[in-house]
Amino acid sequence: MDFFPSALENLIDKFASLPGIGRKTAQRLAFFVISLSDNEAAEFASAITDAKETVVCCTICKNLTSGEICAVCVDTRRNSRVVCVVPDPKGVLAIERSHEFNGTYHVLHGVISPINNVGPDDIRIKELVARVSDGSIEEVIMATNPDTEGDTTARYISRLLQPFGVKVTRLAYGIPVGGSLEFVDDATLMRAIEGRMEM
Amino acid sequence: MDFFPSALENLIDKFASLPGIGRKTAQRLAFFVISLSDNEAAEFASAITDAKETVVCCTICKNLTSGEICAVCVDTRRNSRVVCVVPDPKGVLAIERSHEFNGTYHVLHGVISPINNVGPDDIRIKELVARVSDGSIEEVIMATNPDTEGDTTARYISRLLQPFGVKVTRLAYGIPVGGSLEFVDDATLMRAIEGRMEM
Repeated sequence: MDFFPSALENLIDKFASLPGIGRKTAQRLAFFVISLSDNEAAEFASAITDAKETVVCCTICKNLTSGEICAVCVDTRRNSRVVCVVPDPKGVLAIERSHEFNGTYHVLHGVISPINNVGPDDIRIKELVARVSDGSIEEVIMATNPDTEGDTTARYISRLLQPFGVKVTRLAYGIPVGGSLEFVDDATLMRAIEGRMEM
Repeated sequence: MDFFPSALENLIDKFASLPGIGRKTAQRLAFFVISLSDNEAAEFASAITDAKETVVCCTICKNLTSGEICAVCVDTRRNSRVVCVVPDPKGVLAIERSHEFNGTYHVLHGVISPINNVGPDDIRIKELVARVSDGSIEEVIMATNPDTEGDTTARYISRLLQPFGVKVTRLAYGIPVGGSLEFVDDATLMRAIEGRMEM
């Protein structure tokens, strides 16, 4: 129902097209935006166009960057012979937060998911294979999410990389630090027992 | 932490400034927006500026409109002698959905809320008083939300309008249609008994 002025309905539609935003939330956001000052609203609009225009994928690792090569790939102190494969830029952020990893990344921009019609060619797998094929990479660490799609993607890539003789590892499964044993689910506990380490 | 390109961080900040949108959701929305096509992103940006530029308040009822006077106020088939006072444009939408009301509206754009630093002068109360003061209005129906702030606002306005001899009513409290008695809260049930009607 086009009850509100058409420009407002249009803005509500735009917000409602965002993932996880329903009609009611979209209304609330649109009302908030038109309650902003002219300046603030203009800044919001230009933030969208700016981000869209200036943010590109790093030519090496496909992470988001504003230059041609991202800050991680350009940093010579980092070990470019170890590549951590993450599903999306947020994965890079998560790994960086651990301050444990000094290698570089490869951002897949998705995971293989037949149910969502995402095949191996829809994500940046061939770019990873190209990076590995020139022989300068020693280890590929699969850091996809610990779910079915993440596992499938990791296993697919691992098989694809076998001919190149590169070492392929994946993040350890196990009990989360600070967690309580009684709340750990069975599958995680099983993996934690399988992967037990000597003390 | 400015981990993402600055234009992207900026867009995330903008989304995070919207009501009810946290940092994680803002990230998700920003990533989605930059994954849109150039065209779609430009449309999103212009939807904001368009809405901000063309949507104004109706000079009579203060509802949002793209013209000077809104569709309801301009409609001569509607009874302009009965005015329904709602807290915001969504209130108009809700009342219109009932198909029960043929009068006009007055949109307050807020409710009196000392805790949020909103006083009577911060919402469109004096515009309502001005409308009533010229004597052309017979009844004012208070349709503020059934909560403390809504009640306070309704009572404040009702007292303010007393000198003009206009009839001031409010929406009936009671059990919601289709609800189940056992799930109706005590306060509502009390009001429903107080307001019981002859059959």
